[in-house]
Amino acid sequence: MEYCFGVDIGGTTVKIGLFKTDGELLDKWEIKTRTENKGEAILPDVAESLKQKIEEKGIDASSMSGIGIGIPAPVDAKGIVQNTANLGWGYKEVRREMEELTGMKVAVGNDANVAALGEMWLGAGKGQENMIMVTLGTGVGGGVIVNGQPLVGAHGAGGEIGHLCVNYEETDHCGCGNQGCLEQYASATGITRLANKRLQADDAASLLRGQEISAKAVFDALKDGDKVAEEIVEEFGSYLGHAMANLAAVTDPAVIVIGGGVSKAGEILLGYVEKYFKEKAFFANKETEFVLATLGNDAGICGAAKLIL
Amino acid sequence: MEYCFGVDIGGTTVKIGLFKTDGELLDKWEIKTRTENKGEAILPDVAESLKQKIEEKGIDASSMSGIGIGIPAPVDAKGIVQNTANLGWGYKEVRREMEELTGMKVAVGNDANVAALGEMWLGAGKGQENMIMVTLGTGVGGGVIVNGQPLVGAHGAGGEIGHLCVNYEETDHCGCGNQGCLEQYASATGITRLANKRLQADDAASLLRGQEISAKAVFDALKDGDKVAEEIVEEFGSYLGHAMANLAAVTDPAVIVIGGGVSKAGEILLGYVEKYFKEKAFFANKETEFVLATLGNDAGICGAAKLIL
Repeated sequence: MEYCFGVDIGGTTVKIGLFKTDGELLDKWEIKTRTENKGEAILPDVAESLKQKIEEKGIDASSMSGIGIGIPAPVDAKGIVQNTANLGWGYKEVRREMEELTGMKVAVGNDANVAALGEMWLGAGKGQENMIMVTLGTGVGGGVIVNGQPLVGAHGAGGEIGHLCVNYEETDHCGCGNQGCLEQYASATGITRLANKRLQADDAASLLRGQEISAKAVFDALKDGDKVAEEIVEEFGSYLGHAMANLAAVTDPAVIVIGGGVSKAGEILLGYVEKYFKEKAFFANKETEFVLATLGNDAGICGAAKLIL
Repeated sequence: MEYCFGVDIGGTTVKIGLFKTDGELLDKWEIKTRTENKGEAILPDVAESLKQKIEEKGIDASSMSGIGIGIPAPVDAKGIVQNTANLGWGYKEVRREMEELTGMKVAVGNDANVAALGEMWLGAGKGQENMIMVTLGTGVGGGVIVNGQPLVGAHGAGGEIGHLCVNYEETDHCGCGNQGCLEQYASATGITRLANKRLQADDAASLLRGQEISAKAVFDALKDGDKVAEEIVEEFGSYLGHAMANLAAVTDPAVIVIGGGVSKAGEILLGYVEKYFKEKAFFANKETEFVLATLGNDAGICGAAKLIL
């Protein structure tokens, strides 16, 4: 068992990696995600692509450990999804179908949980068995790793970090329908929302005025010493840091990994989160380390590969 | 492998159960916890008691699966505690010492996590593999069961449900040093605190006036139709229900079990918690079932026994 595949199925592209079982990434490529006709072509397309790669590399089928797959939806322990927001699938037995298509062993997980597993295996959480990963992108995703395995839960919906309620006074709604979700404050769109609210509150001078507001613009202004930007980042940090303190009290991680587009702001971001984390963390968790994710877009294929090992 | 022991070490007594490995409780008894001299006698006392029981029952050593032990302190995966609040122990390799004392296989866990495991095995969570148990006693304890195992975490401090911050405006301090911990609102002492605050706020008529306030008195008054008691229970329910909604978003349990002295109020309590849970639960968790614990004080010995199986 020398090789395995990691497959990260997204709404636009499917990212695929060929790995050695020790973690070496030998090759990676992408194919289009064909979501038309209820996404019926997606798994056959992936299976065909894997078959071609095996032939191209002259790999013997007996040396393949199998295929791990990350899916942007809750996935239960049997590799079944009930519904997907952007693949076209309704109920689908992903593991069984893919095993039938390829004749290989298949494991399936939620993409955010799988990305967390990737950071544990080959990235910022290397060597740890208990870890939280928070992905700050358009939304807030994440995964909790317990004893080296993603926390999947009873319905495959574990690790929905973005939907922790962090503000019971909030009047705006989150995409999930609730009010006060972490995602409303700590995602790229959430930071933009905080920034617009702050800028409208008064006329305080800021580098942000007159430019298009984005999470990147806020962190760039912060780095240039802008006081209003700092207030916005403090607010972001307090919501995220406090949420992580609660999460740590329950899951007791060795390390908290921050990834996603917002994390490109760099180390400066961690300080604002850690400050509020320490303020509310249970004493046993005060020293929990915060680090930036290191795998970027490869976290998904890495974690998917690890799923099967 | 027909039998095993479950040992629940508390600050005053050690509860011990002899189980068949199918879960049948054959015998249970208690011994005193001798905490003097840094608790040096505790493990030898337990070992001696187990030895006597084996002789008394005429059990062959080869048919013993081993000994599971619950400890009122964080315990890591190797069965090591760093410190205990009420046993006298500092650093102690509990598993190794007990294995040397008895010659049997030993597993050690935190008592709250172990009690949750007991309810999963033989109590209110029977048949489930993903479960939260909250114990509402003098404090608020609890355990999270993931894939049939307690969530222990990196430092053995997983499942500290009582120290989730649920109120960032709180000015009173929790025993842990933080402010706004769930324990300050949902424990027996927390409910008493809420009741005293409510009664002092105005002169509204209440059955609670003139009697000694306790969690039991509040729930008794509620059952008698007292409006002030209902307000207090609503407040309790909102903190606990909202906290469970956040916990469920991350751990996705099949069932949430409520135990401890406060839960003796009965089914009426669950309604007030579920109402606020549903208000803030992530959509995938809205239907999570709430049930009362069924094992009472036996949860600890049951879960300890399950630890070794």
